[in-house]
Amino acid sequence: MKGKNVLKVARGHVSLWEQQLRALSTAASTEKLSQGTKLSQRCSFSAADVTSYCRLTGDSNPIHTSTSAAQDAGFSGCVVPGMLCGSLFPAIIGSRFAGAVYVSQTLTFKAPVAVDEYLIAEVEVTAIQNLRRNAKITFSTRCFTDENERLLVEGQAVALLPLIKDLG
Amino acid sequence: MKGKNVLKVARGHVSLWEQQLRALSTAASTEKLSQGTKLSQRCSFSAADVTSYCRLTGDSNPIHTSTSAAQDAGFSGCVVPGMLCGSLFPAIIGSRFAGAVYVSQTLTFKAPVAVDEYLIAEVEVTAIQNLRRNAKITFSTRCFTDENERLLVEGQAVALLPLIKDLG
Repeated sequence: MKGKNVLKVARGHVSLWEQQLRALSTAASTEKLSQGTKLSQRCSFSAADVTSYCRLTGDSNPIHTSTSAAQDAGFSGCVVPGMLCGSLFPAIIGSRFAGAVYVSQTLTFKAPVAVDEYLIAEVEVTAIQNLRRNAKITFSTRCFTDENERLLVEGQAVALLPLIKDLG
Repeated sequence: MKGKNVLKVARGHVSLWEQQLRALSTAASTEKLSQGTKLSQRCSFSAADVTSYCRLTGDSNPIHTSTSAAQDAGFSGCVVPGMLCGSLFPAIIGSRFAGAVYVSQTLTFKAPVAVDEYLIAEVEVTAIQNLRRNAKITFSTRCFTDENERLLVEGQAVALLPLIKDLG
């Protein structure tokens, strides 16, 4: 992780959202966003996380839960569903900007994410359009390995953020 | 739901994936895929599903879990995370084609999905490219309401499917 604008957020807990927003006030106001502002989150997904996610979404592709099936498909072990990694982008944005509404997301899956592998999900502001009631923000979005910054997922997101004053 | 090519799949259960694939053999072979083939899944997400998903991904945006916060943001009630709806597309594909590897997904969120609202997620084959070891399939992807087919999410997915024979 490089750059002055990087603001890490801990993996969220629903019951604490308000406290988190208040505690992490430096970028919780759209006034403080500018081109190049980055928000990121470091996390990993356990086998139990992946199983929960697969049950929620009805995904029974065995490459996510069976080591032998994953190996048969050419992977070294179970693969975290790509969309679960992609879900970190709206999570970062929505956790920092309560009331954020997601408009679009593109995702290209560049490399498999292993169960229990630590990754960084990062969103970077690339365009800001101020509207009457909110701001339409475009982000470049990517996940990369914590260890050597190997790219795992990349894409672009657009979200409408409420025009809120600094919560700090 | 219209059209002859529509093949509904029940919401999956990880422990049953193999039986499901064998039972639902009609489109579980890439040989049987052609332009226009549709696979779909009908489901809804409960408040408990959304809470589980938000905990998994660290999304603490209160529009997903607090009715008053959702109403403050202009919605009638809690909104299912868009990416959770989008996750149905790889779930449909990966559950029918064990070993499928997702390459890309675009998503545009057209309308909010309410908690407990029934929706149809549908993928439709738009292009097939046969490679040496697998088939690269492009799908148009969309979610719409079960009741009046109002569009909720649309986009495009690309996946590599193993060249498997009919499992039936």
